[in-house]
Amino acid sequence: MHRTSAYAAATPKALLAPHAIERRAPGPRDVLIDIAYCGVCHSDIHQARDEWGGGGIFPMVPGHEIVGHVAEVGVEVAGFAVGDAVGVGCFVDSCRRCAQCTAGEEQFCEQDMTATYNGMERDGVTPTHGGYSTRITVDQDYVLRIPAGMPLDRAAPLLCAGITTYSPMKHYGVHSGDRVAVVGLGGLGHMAVKIARAMGAEVTVLSTSEGKRDDALALGAHAFAATGDKGTFKRLAKTFDKIIDTVSAAHDYNAYLSLLKTDGTMILLGVPDAPVPLAAGALIMQRRKLGGSLIGGIRETQEMLDFCAEHDIASDIELIDIAQINEAYERMIRGDVRYRFVIDLATLDQAA
Amino acid sequence: MHRTSAYAAATPKALLAPHAIERRAPGPRDVLIDIAYCGVCHSDIHQARDEWGGGGIFPMVPGHEIVGHVAEVGVEVAGFAVGDAVGVGCFVDSCRRCAQCTAGEEQFCEQDMTATYNGMERDGVTPTHGGYSTRITVDQDYVLRIPAGMPLDRAAPLLCAGITTYSPMKHYGVHSGDRVAVVGLGGLGHMAVKIARAMGAEVTVLSTSEGKRDDALALGAHAFAATGDKGTFKRLAKTFDKIIDTVSAAHDYNAYLSLLKTDGTMILLGVPDAPVPLAAGALIMQRRKLGGSLIGGIRETQEMLDFCAEHDIASDIELIDIAQINEAYERMIRGDVRYRFVIDLATLDQAA
Repeated sequence: MHRTSAYAAATPKALLAPHAIERRAPGPRDVLIDIAYCGVCHSDIHQARDEWGGGGIFPMVPGHEIVGHVAEVGVEVAGFAVGDAVGVGCFVDSCRRCAQCTAGEEQFCEQDMTATYNGMERDGVTPTHGGYSTRITVDQDYVLRIPAGMPLDRAAPLLCAGITTYSPMKHYGVHSGDRVAVVGLGGLGHMAVKIARAMGAEVTVLSTSEGKRDDALALGAHAFAATGDKGTFKRLAKTFDKIIDTVSAAHDYNAYLSLLKTDGTMILLGVPDAPVPLAAGALIMQRRKLGGSLIGGIRETQEMLDFCAEHDIASDIELIDIAQINEAYERMIRGDVRYRFVIDLATLDQAA
Repeated sequence: MHRTSAYAAATPKALLAPHAIERRAPGPRDVLIDIAYCGVCHSDIHQARDEWGGGGIFPMVPGHEIVGHVAEVGVEVAGFAVGDAVGVGCFVDSCRRCAQCTAGEEQFCEQDMTATYNGMERDGVTPTHGGYSTRITVDQDYVLRIPAGMPLDRAAPLLCAGITTYSPMKHYGVHSGDRVAVVGLGGLGHMAVKIARAMGAEVTVLSTSEGKRDDALALGAHAFAATGDKGTFKRLAKTFDKIIDTVSAAHDYNAYLSLLKTDGTMILLGVPDAPVPLAAGALIMQRRKLGGSLIGGIRETQEMLDFCAEHDIASDIELIDIAQINEAYERMIRGDVRYRFVIDLATLDQAA
């Protein structure tokens, strides 16, 4: 076992604070990773505060946007060597046998994926702990390769925000020349803009705030429209082939659906606190579709990393010390981050 | 012009009553049809009572499930001859030039299709009148061929209820071996059961009423489940590849979505009076889709008729005299019809 420095929420009401955990010594198929950076996902806050209906496992070490270097490999590990730049995303294991796992869609494992944190290992009794820590031991099949030349700190958010936006574009089919709207310009939205543009789409950012116009265009969007302006919905009616909706706050699905062409698809990535009224006619009259998407499988996550490297895409980040994490949470809740906090884990050894 | 007997609603508050209309003498590309039968669609009631937000065109002659025989053809008409059994569905014209029309999806015509009744001809000033009448003049491109041997009265509802259920199964892809649920066993639902079964699906009918079990099985469903029984939703969780939802009454979309497998699709055909709360998580967690569908194009409607002939499918109907139409409306509102009223237009000449 490796005693490892971490930051944990001791209880749902507690601030994150230094905490020591044990990482298993690498088994034959395991990779031990020295964590360099970990992105801060909004779901870290929800889970650390147990806002998803209870059942959170405490003390909890959040973090599922992990990058670092291989420190040690098990005897059967092929394809990873000490010093390699690697990543770990939202899950670290799955049943490996069901139809979804064998199809490479481990995120939909019929026996449930093993979440990187706030989950249980396949033994059912060992809690998992995430990337707000200095190292992690992960089965080689759930380790991603960070392409050469990609800045590690800016790569971290790709492991969740990147795959969460890339996967639906592949699954629902964003094609070159498609008109794509991205709703919301946060951690997910800013990645959606970059990826959709790299796929050849003509990208429009829809945001409540006119203040995001310059950022949207700087990130690569071809156009911007403020949704607070009622004229926007008339002007852009039946315009888009796809809408990537990253917003978790309540908003009017029907108004956004009206912006889709016939046969267009809107893909939900955010989960508002309460169900949102849906008018069947908004789907029926133009044969529109409303779909969801959830991260992506290991194979597709690697494909996304390679795609991002090829297109020189990474996340726009604000690098923080681990000691700033509680303040970062408060700023995220206020929407005050462009566009992802990433923890520099070199600051943890000192803190712990 | 041909003076033609019909039944019309003089105003939104009036009962349907005898009324004379003019049908145009066939132009070079027109087909004059002696109407034999016309199905009674629930949308006839909504429109005759102007329940869709005003704007109904009165006096209104409803009816868009029309079958009959060719009485006369224009000089340029090819493919139809006097005496042929033919049908007319929900629209009788469209712009013919837009992307949707050229793709054979005239129901989504960008200049709007010309509804068979309660619409305006392309001239913008001549109201259209439907099949509660003894004849109709229609451009040959919007006339369907009723396959030989198909009983005409039972064919009539295929022109709306048939294509409305066939088209989404083709568009969203119902495949042999798929597990398909049909929600609601009315005019649409009973056609959905027959068509899905003929496509090789394993069909389950979901209905509030246990009393429909025997009918469902007799119509060809492999299974039946009462949705009033809460155990149904637990027992059938993640069971279906596709759900064809024909219900217009308010119901819980999220509960039905939970019955879909990963990557399953629920298709809405009914429009509840008010929007229905949708939980984004119901779509996201299993990458499910919710779609709509609207009748079908002319080419696909002919394909559906040929498919039904090949599989010996027609609607289950109750044949009525035109004088019974107001009573039939009341019975439909009570759900008291198995499964479609069809008007025998031979009873109209006497009545008018």
